[in-house]
Formats: sequence, C-alpha cells, structure tokens
Amino acid sequence: MSNIFLATKRAPFEYELDATTGQPRPAISAGGTASVVADQAQYLRTNWISSAMSEADQEMARRHPDGIDLGPLGIETSRLFLLRHEAQTFERFQHFFTADVLWRTIHGLWETWRAPNFESSLRRGWEAYETTNEQFARALADAASRAADPLFLIHDYQLLCVSSYLRPLVGASKILSFSHLPWPSADTWRILPSYVRGPMLERALAADVIGFFAHRWVWNFLCCVEDNVQGARISYHNGEVAIGRRITRVRAMPLGYSPSSLRTRPPQLGEELEQWVGSRRLVVHAGRTDPIKNAPRAVGAFAAARERDDAVQAARMLVKMNPNRLYVDVNAAYLDETRRVIDAVNANAGEECIRLVLDNDVGLTLGSLARADLIFLNSILDGQNLTAFEGSILNDRHADLVLSEGCGAAEALGDVAAIINPFNIDEQADALIEGLTRAPEDAQMRSDRRRAVALEYPLPRWVDQQLSELRLSDAPESTIPSA
Amino acid sequence: MSNIFLATKRAPFEYELDATTGQPRPAISAGGTASVVADQAQYLRTNWISSAMSEADQEMARRHPDGIDLGPLGIETSRLFLLRHEAQTFERFQHFFTADVLWRTIHGLWETWRAPNFESSLRRGWEAYETTNEQFARALADAASRAADPLFLIHDYQLLCVSSYLRPLVGASKILSFSHLPWPSADTWRILPSYVRGPMLERALAADVIGFFAHRWVWNFLCCVEDNVQGARISYHNGEVAIGRRITRVRAMPLGYSPSSLRTRPPQLGEELEQWVGSRRLVVHAGRTDPIKNAPRAVGAFAAARERDDAVQAARMLVKMNPNRLYVDVNAAYLDETRRVIDAVNANAGEECIRLVLDNDVGLTLGSLARADLIFLNSILDGQNLTAFEGSILNDRHADLVLSEGCGAAEALGDVAAIINPFNIDEQADALIEGLTRAPEDAQMRSDRRRAVALEYPLPRWVDQQLSELRLSDAPESTIPSA
Repeated sequence: MSNIFLATKRAPFEYELDATTGQPRPAISAGGTASVVADQAQYLRTNWISSAMSEADQEMARRHPDGIDLGPLGIETSRLFLLRHEAQTFERFQHFFTADVLWRTIHGLWETWRAPNFESSLRRGWEAYETTNEQFARALADAASRAADPLFLIHDYQLLCVSSYLRPLVGASKILSFSHLPWPSADTWRILPSYVRGPMLERALAADVIGFFAHRWVWNFLCCVEDNVQGARISYHNGEVAIGRRITRVRAMPLGYSPSSLRTRPPQLGEELEQWVGSRRLVVHAGRTDPIKNAPRAVGAFAAARERDDAVQAARMLVKMNPNRLYVDVNAAYLDETRRVIDAVNANAGEECIRLVLDNDVGLTLGSLARADLIFLNSILDGQNLTAFEGSILNDRHADLVLSEGCGAAEALGDVAAIINPFNIDEQADALIEGLTRAPEDAQMRSDRRRAVALEYPLPRWVDQQLSELRLSDAPESTIPSA
Repeated sequence: MSNIFLATKRAPFEYELDATTGQPRPAISAGGTASVVADQAQYLRTNWISSAMSEADQEMARRHPDGIDLGPLGIETSRLFLLRHEAQTFERFQHFFTADVLWRTIHGLWETWRAPNFESSLRRGWEAYETTNEQFARALADAASRAADPLFLIHDYQLLCVSSYLRPLVGASKILSFSHLPWPSADTWRILPSYVRGPMLERALAADVIGFFAHRWVWNFLCCVEDNVQGARISYHNGEVAIGRRITRVRAMPLGYSPSSLRTRPPQLGEELEQWVGSRRLVVHAGRTDPIKNAPRAVGAFAAARERDDAVQAARMLVKMNPNRLYVDVNAAYLDETRRVIDAVNANAGEECIRLVLDNDVGLTLGSLARADLIFLNSILDGQNLTAFEGSILNDRHADLVLSEGCGAAEALGDVAAIINPFNIDEQADALIEGLTRAPEDAQMRSDRRRAVALEYPLPRWVDQQLSELRLSDAPESTIPSA
C-alpha cells in the first residue's frame, strides 16, 4: 500500500449507470484539476479520496468500502475511495459556497456595489464547507490508519480546511494543501464575512505546506494571513507563517503540463474546422465557459486588429470553449456575451471570420493549439493556465503566445511570451498584429525558446517539489522570531 | 504673502453669472474635498490654485491674473488663482479619466469580466491628466516665484502627478501630495494599463510626503510601488520609498472634522422631516449619490432588522443623499437602485418607514446626524468618511455608530463603533437591532467615549501633521539600504 494519500473533490472518473446493464461504468470527468491530479495519482501510485458525484458513484462507494481498484482504468495500483455526502450539504458546499461565492471572490468577479449580499444562506454554505472538509479528513485518516509514515496531499480550494480536521487525527504526519486558483489581495478577501475569512485561513494553516502555482498568490495569501489571523508571525521573504511553535511553509510550485496527458490524447482539429480554416492563419483562444477566460475582449481585440492590419484581416479566429458549470449564472451570461460579440464581428465582416466551438473534446483543444499561428490567452485572472504551456509544446507552426499578466503562467513564461493587460484592448490588438506579422526566422526563434522554457515544467517536477517541500518542513525551528 | 501654496482641482467657490447684473458672483461648491480644503486654506491663510470650472470662473480668472482676494468671502488673506484649461482636455481629465476610470479603479467598482475595456480614449485621458497636472505645476511655481522657502500642499487624486512637474521648477522646496481616496491593492491597481499605473506612481513619488487618511491605504500604495516601479526600495515598516538618493515618506494622517465647518452650518432637520419622524427612533444613512456609499444594502439590512425586532419596526430610516456626479452612469444607476429598494420596503411595510432625501443642504445633513438614534455608514470602501466623526460629535441622543470596516475612519473609531462588513446584510441587521435596543446608560457611555475619540481629530491637527511631516522630510539620509 502506498503511503501517499491524495484528496480532491472530483475524481478522475465519474460513474454513470449503463442504460442496458444498469451497472455503473466509468466516464472521464470534466474539469482541469481532476485530470491533472489523475496524472499525479498515476505518477505517485497513490490512494485517492474524492466525492461521489453521481448516483452511480454512490453505488460504487457502497460496493467498495475498501476502495476501488483503478488498475483496469489504466491508473496502476491507485485505489479510489468515494465519499458519500448528504445531498443538501453537498449542494450548499459545491454549487453555492465553492463554485459561486469562493470562485467569484477569489477571482474578483463581484460588481461590488450590487453583490454579494451575504445572508444566513452563506452561513449555511460555510457550515457545509466545514462539514464536507471534516468528512474528507476522517476518510483520509481512516484510509491511512495502517500506513507507516503517511503523507497527505490535499488539492484545491474546495478542501482548504481539511488540514485542520486531519491534524488531530494524524499527529505530526505531513500535510500539504494546494490551491489551483489565484489567491486574492487582502482587500478582496475582506469581502467575505469575518466568520469565513479568518477561520478559513487559520484552518488552512494546519498544513505543513500550502502551495500555489505562482509567487504572486503566495504574497497575497501571506497578506491575507497578516490581515485576518491574530498572533500569526509572517516572513514574506521566507514564505513562512508561524503560529505559536507551528510553522507553515507557503510556496509557489509551478506546473506546466502533464507529459502523459499530452501523449494519450492525440491532437486533431477535425475535417470541418480544417476546411473552414483552409490555408489561412489561425488565432486560437481556448478555455472553459468561465468569465475569467475573457473571450469577449479577445474577440474585441481581434476585431480591432482586423481593421488595422491586412494580415489579421486575412486570418481567422477560433474560440474553443469547454462547457463548464453553466448552472452558474455568470458562466451562462459569459457564454451568451461571447456569442453576441462574435456574431457582431462576423456580421460586420460579412463572413464567418470567428467561430465559437463549444465542446469538451480535449483532442480538439490540443489540435487547435497545434494548428494555431497565434495562441491568445488573455484571462482576467487565472491560477496558472496550463494551455499556455501545452500550446507552446504542441505547436509546430512557430505560433506566438499572447498571454495575460493575470495568469500565474506569466511568471514562468513572461520573458518568452507577449505579455498583455487583460483590460487593454489596444495592447492586445497590437500584440495580435505583431504576432501575425513577425518575420519567419524571428517567429521560429521565439517559439523555440518558449518551448524550451515550457518543457522545464512537467508534472513529475511539480509533484516532486510538493514532496520535497513536505520533507523540508521537518526543519525543527522557526526562522520567524516571536513578536 | 504666505509661503504656503495649496492646489485642489475644485475651488471652494464656483462663480456663476448673476442673471440681473451679468456679473460673476460666488456660490459654494459641492464636493467634500473642496469644503475641507477651504477650511484648511482658512487655517493656513494660504495661496490657492484651482481649476476654473464655470464660464464665470473663466471670466474671474481673466480679470484677476494675480489672484482673487477671498477676504470678502470670509477666507482671510487667502488668494485664489483660477486656472483656465482647454475645454476638451479638461473634459477628458475630469469627466472621463478621474471621475470615471480612476474613481472606479481605486474603489474596485468594475465588474471586471465586462469592464473596463481600454482603448485609445484612455491614452488621451491619461495625456489630459498629464497636461492638466503640468499646468497646475506651472501655476504653483509662478505663484510661488517670489516666496521665500515655499511649501506646496497638493490635494487629492486628480493632482497626483503635479509633484513630478513641479519638482524641476522649485528645486528642493518641500512638496506634499495628499489623496483623500482609499488606495487599492496591487492587484486592483494592475487593472490600469502599464502606461498609466507605473508612471503615475513614479510621478507621485517626486513629492517629499504622500499622505492618506489611513494606514491601510499607505500599505496598499507601497505594495503598488513595489509592483510597478523598478528600482524603488521600500520600507513597509517606516513608510518610505527610496529611488536613488530621493526619499518619499508615505504617511497616514487621519482627519475627523473641521471645527469651523461645524460652527458655521447650524444643524436643522426641517419641519416636514421632523413631523414625519415624530417621536420615533431614527436611523440615518448619509452620503453622496455614489455607489461606494452602499445605501441599497443599508436599506436591505434595515428591512431585515424590521422583520426580526419590534424596536426597529417602530423606527424610521432617513437616507440623506447629496446629489453628486449624476452624469456618471454608475452614480445614476445607484440612485435608481436605492429608490427601487426603498419603494419595495415601504410598499411591503404599508407605510413610509424609509425616506430618501436628495439635497445638497449641509445643515440638513448635520441636522439629521444630530437627530439620529443610530448613524449607519456602511460604505463599501471610503477614503475616510468624515460623517462618522461629525455625527459622533453633533449627536446628543446617544446614537450608536454602525460603521463599515471599508472606511478609513474605522482605524480611528474601530474600538468605539460597531464595525460591520459592508457585504454582510445579516451582520448589519444585527448591529441595527443591538444599537436600537441598547440600555440607555450603556448607549450614553458608548457615545460619550466615541465623541471623546472623534474630538481628537480636528482639522488643525491634520494640517499641522502635514506641515510637520514635510519638515521631518529634511532628514538627509535614507533609512533604506540599497538593493
């Protein structure tokens, strides 16, 4: 049995009931975190605790109290434990508290003078978050009860408080908690009520290591601790928080891509899209149906660049979206708004110069990145943005990368990409023109350099960094003096 | 001639043409900054440079190139120099760049996935800001050309770059630049394009002292400098920025109230309002027609508290608004939304339990604060909020103060007011109930303590602090080591 125990809200597979046999059968989950973490589980041969999402998941959980063997699904020697949550609690935890309130707050998506308006529903949401996190902690401790020297890796913002419930159950065992999102400034974090914002940080600090993709999120997290946790001593320089004798290391650990993921999903654009593009140059914008992905401004910049430059006018733009959480109002509004601006630009151009493709097909995403002459990722704010790395590696047409400074990825790729402000349409249009009119040898040199940098961030390096930070956290003495 | 030269965008008086005589005659300006700074000018007997706003202002500027004597208007020995700006430049500077873009950015009012969308108009707005700020600098230098050892006090966010244009004209003369607004986090400041956000900070740092009302804004400003100004060395602890050998002190200087202002404007509620209130307990919310003032959530909290508590149900609520910048879309939308929620609560209650009064009468504002049984200031974000102090001093009914943590004033009054989160309706409703049901002796003790604290922040102390920080800035050596 592996001594590594991994927790994520979503499993890599969601089971559904086969219409013919009535038996549960696995299907690949949507969502970027689950697939990245699946590759992590594969690499570590870990034990994995996730939430049962579907009815078939619940059935599988009942049948396999000692975990599901994932070997037949190609994830060797990993066991999956599915947790059954009380339905209303899980609904409040998932659809309301994390996917709506936390997501919007962390990404600064509120129009603050109108929303949020916190009432008693938020307190119930927070209690559901606590309950669910506690349930994860108990399941982790149970699963690890016979393991010698267990290590706990807890992934993403839905499970930030698991550490505090797990700590008393596992003593000095090492716990890492990783958030795949940005972390907001102290002023933005202050939007949350005091009964959430302080306790959530305090509970997270029960981990030995807290990880983010970028240094900017580490800095913000430390500022939030300073603002909300009484008695915490903070070293911004060392990335450490001390409360009493307990030390938590807060670290940036960049991830770029998963080699196995890129290997197993062959890129393909598909015949219809290939015909539509033809031999034209292609700009690709790829992301979920999530307002942080900023497609309407990308379309606006493309339209502005088109008016100013013949090379852009002759080009086409593909907006590739993975349908995601369309039950959240703002996600649905984002999709509508993207459609509206694309229709307007096409009507004005008198041809379909921009196409929206709404599809969860990963091969199609990778295919569009491979075919692109320019990859355009202008997120408002984005924990990392793996597409920036994947596109840089897969593309063989010397495509430029136009990347938002709001992406964690800008820390790794800032010197080898065209970095833009996500609100500045002019700057984005300039970058499109420059990227599509670059001399071929210059374009090749730039994309070669960028691929070399991107290749430095494979998943195994990221996983190894998590483990080595956990080991370093053995250091007995704090470097932070008492106040 | 005084050696102190004060600059504000708005003068304390705006001239208008008399309908009968056709001659310019003065009227009191709207806007909190101008009236506070007027009292500052009165106290310092300073020379004052402002923008000519109206046609009559332009005429006065033409007639009085050596400054207007304000003695007849009750501001002794101060001279006012009105600057004539080119109309389109001033429009871009005032209505677009400062009142819209900077205001919204600094207060975090954008719904980021929809707005802002920066195009070439923003660059023209920024150029107009630079041009106007340069014009102020030249006028200050001209006015001070015969003064020995002049001191320059430059007030508010419209004039943050004046220092950089003034510095080469006045050598080592002391310059203070004060912003009456909050300062945003580095992430929020990043919304602005790179050609604004870095240069604006660098230009501001040509001052010897930069002042804000609260320490929180100082911290944010220093973070923004670290994020945007290459080569700046920052001491968060000392509140200092060093660039080369030049040091800028960044300081919190709280202001509470202007004693002369409170003396000269007698509080009066007016007969009609007095009849409407009768002997009932009264909750007062006071502020401009500005979304930061958060009236809809105050109304929501009052409605929630009404349903839960008889004391609140028997009370009335006055929402007193000063009409301000209603040409800005979001301000007009805010007024509409406030009206809508008030109408809904009244319709539901079957009586006019809440009344909106839209009026610039300062005496009426002070009268409502004096009459209040609870003062409710729940701003989303507010540089200081002088009303919190004025109300605490004027009120003689032992009213509680329910104050947002988003106000700079919360730093001075945090221990003697009920501090609430501006987004948490429940918490605000609880504070209303607690405030209106407090035992009389407790209420009296609290309001006495609060008045004593508020009285510690009179305008002369604030002005003296500005001057003493300028004098301290003579210290020859930086405390910040080179990088």
